Amino acid sequence: MARINDHYLKLKAGYLFPEIGRRVRSFVEANPDADVIKLGIGDVTEPLPAACIEAMHAAVDEMATRDTFRGYMDDSQGYPWLRETIAEYDYASRGCDISADEIFVSDGSKCDAANILDILAPGRTNTVAVVDPVYPVYVDTNVMAGNTGAANDAGEYAGVVYLPATAENDFTPDLPAGRVDVIYLCYPNNPTGTVATREALARWVRYAQEHRSLILFDAAYEAYITDDTVAHSIYEIDGARQCAIEFRSFSKNAGFTGTRCAFAVVPERLTGVDGQGRDVPLHQLWSRRQNTRFNGVSYVVQRGAEAVYSDAGRQQVRQLVEFYLANAKIVREAVGELGMDVYGGINAPYIWLKTPAGASSWDFFDKLLGECHIVGTPGSGFGGSGEGYLRISAFNSRDNIEIAMRRMCDQLGV
Amino acid sequence: MARINDHYLKLKAGYLFPEIGRRVRSFVEANPDADVIKLGIGDVTEPLPAACIEAMHAAVDEMATRDTFRGYMDDSQGYPWLRETIAEYDYASRGCDISADEIFVSDGSKCDAANILDILAPGRTNTVAVVDPVYPVYVDTNVMAGNTGAANDAGEYAGVVYLPATAENDFTPDLPAGRVDVIYLCYPNNPTGTVATREALARWVRYAQEHRSLILFDAAYEAYITDDTVAHSIYEIDGARQCAIEFRSFSKNAGFTGTRCAFAVVPERLTGVDGQGRDVPLHQLWSRRQNTRFNGVSYVVQRGAEAVYSDAGRQQVRQLVEFYLANAKIVREAVGELGMDVYGGINAPYIWLKTPAGASSWDFFDKLLGECHIVGTPGSGFGGSGEGYLRISAFNSRDNIEIAMRRMCDQLGV
Repeated sequence: MARINDHYLKLKAGYLFPEIGRRVRSFVEANPDADVIKLGIGDVTEPLPAACIEAMHAAVDEMATRDTFRGYMDDSQGYPWLRETIAEYDYASRGCDISADEIFVSDGSKCDAANILDILAPGRTNTVAVVDPVYPVYVDTNVMAGNTGAANDAGEYAGVVYLPATAENDFTPDLPAGRVDVIYLCYPNNPTGTVATREALARWVRYAQEHRSLILFDAAYEAYITDDTVAHSIYEIDGARQCAIEFRSFSKNAGFTGTRCAFAVVPERLTGVDGQGRDVPLHQLWSRRQNTRFNGVSYVVQRGAEAVYSDAGRQQVRQLVEFYLANAKIVREAVGELGMDVYGGINAPYIWLKTPAGASSWDFFDKLLGECHIVGTPGSGFGGSGEGYLRISAFNSRDNIEIAMRRMCDQLGV
Repeated sequence: MARINDHYLKLKAGYLFPEIGRRVRSFVEANPDADVIKLGIGDVTEPLPAACIEAMHAAVDEMATRDTFRGYMDDSQGYPWLRETIAEYDYASRGCDISADEIFVSDGSKCDAANILDILAPGRTNTVAVVDPVYPVYVDTNVMAGNTGAANDAGEYAGVVYLPATAENDFTPDLPAGRVDVIYLCYPNNPTGTVATREALARWVRYAQEHRSLILFDAAYEAYITDDTVAHSIYEIDGARQCAIEFRSFSKNAGFTGTRCAFAVVPERLTGVDGQGRDVPLHQLWSRRQNTRFNGVSYVVQRGAEAVYSDAGRQQVRQLVEFYLANAKIVREAVGELGMDVYGGINAPYIWLKTPAGASSWDFFDKLLGECHIVGTPGSGFGGSGEGYLRISAFNSRDNIEIAMRRMCDQLGV
């Protein structure tokens, strides 16, 4: 009798985006002529950089000839030429001591953030902390791994430490009162679009060192940082090599959401503790995990990712990021003109707005859809502390962003 | 204090292929002029089919233009056009009732065979059976999930039911004496290259129905079947829809080992049992798992996989398979001429030979490397019942296969 993983049954049925999809479909059916503009899901809209296109064509051609054909890699960790390029441009260039051997190329940051739990003790051995509001995958994967209890009516799982980040605390959560073993941090933040100062990150690193906790640092939106004082990597903070794993992605800088490439950084000397209290290098466990359960990223895609770092590629990525940031500025200004409090959108492609007149997130979502034909993302979908907020994504064409904001000003303005 | 997954520490350090790599490197260092021919790892050597190359170029071009650019999929399960094509050509064409909704496109069968454990109860709740010799990933992933006890000196893990498949039982393992909950079957088999008759598969399905067990059926080598009486899919057997998940791959038919695409079939009405004894559809759990932990396969790669089923693609894949099977025939004949007992190589790209004069697998591996400069895979690396056997892969150029077999006949012949 094959027994299932009962922890899956604890998952709240409605993942945020399917519920949004349901409401949008129902609106479109009732209003077939409405021009609905989707600023909900954080998906890019612009084509891949020309440098990536060129590199991928060349790689496809290599697969057509016996002499240049590529089969399995020696190690699922990724080709050395890609890992060395990442080490140079993303780390050495910012003074971070990260070697190519510490970089693991993968097919997505979502996968990495989920899979990392495989090498950690399951079943509530570790206490897990997340910032609230939070990218739902961090929590759901912990539920699946049995690291939580059941959910309450607010959708919060027993055993998870939720750290509120709201306008009241300047989106800078307090350190946990007690001990937590694993901490998810995402900066620039999804969904709030806010950043952490170096001082705030240093406090986290100190906390992690004191408690021997592990920081899982999601830097998927790093390319959007415009403020020179903000760290692009957790490894810019002293001591982070001893307590942090970092996740990076090509999805939001080079538009790889449908192309699939990312990487995780697991420093060589970062350790966890086994049941006997002995230190065990996480690098060794992750390498074993990846080689046993994963066969690496498509050669063609790795060549595309490498091209992100070429001279042309870096310039094209910069243009893409600037394009989306200019969209974000338009949204910020429109929302500000309407008198709403607005956060994010300066170092991130997300604008986080406080709903007017104390409306709930879903009520304002419905109003925006019904009156402006704009799809946002209800803040409450990201956790209790997101209630009363709504996320607007800057990922869309300039035309759509401008039309959407004009509509918002026309419909919602006084 | 971040605690690690202690189950990883039970894994025997020497995964088979690294140890082979070590011995080959050491031989090459001592014999720098030797022309070593690698017939060890099961990796293809011929370029991708022209139809796939063409489709991938077209898909890369689509990624270069805003109107045809693809970002996230709606569902990580895979594009409907690919899943519908698979359902038609791989299943409907053979009379199997499998719909596109039951097909989950992934980046590899290794990943699928490993990840499927995520939706099953961890921690020795299920008793797991494998055929011995076995593809090591099935066992190692169960160790990692905590489904086994410690390994003994022979490398066998407590709690796993090993079902011997040797020449003595015609490579047809007996059904387990007692109850097992999860059963891994791989046909055509890696490493032995042998197949299961329809009657043997029907016995497994009946066993699984009686015990409400789950069969995990790995059909990665299905394209190599030349015997018309052999089933290509477990779903050709009555009742399999109620007890089996099937894994398929584009790695060994179309040469996607470095391109990465595969799929799993999870029938809609296949269920497992929860802690309260209730039936739970595995399709729903797998869908949740994949959408939460995976973002789908690269668009460009999915278009390449679709082209495998075009008229040109099917013809090109047939030619590739026939090429490797002709290699296998050359190996079979050479090994037979040398008087060794030889199995496989007719419906599979692997030849499984009995080592001469009762030599151990590793001794014969060393002899083959030292005297013939050929790398095989020691059968004992696949499990205790593989001792005294050696696997030779037919994945190589015709020239290399012919040179290697000539050397074997010259060096080892009487």
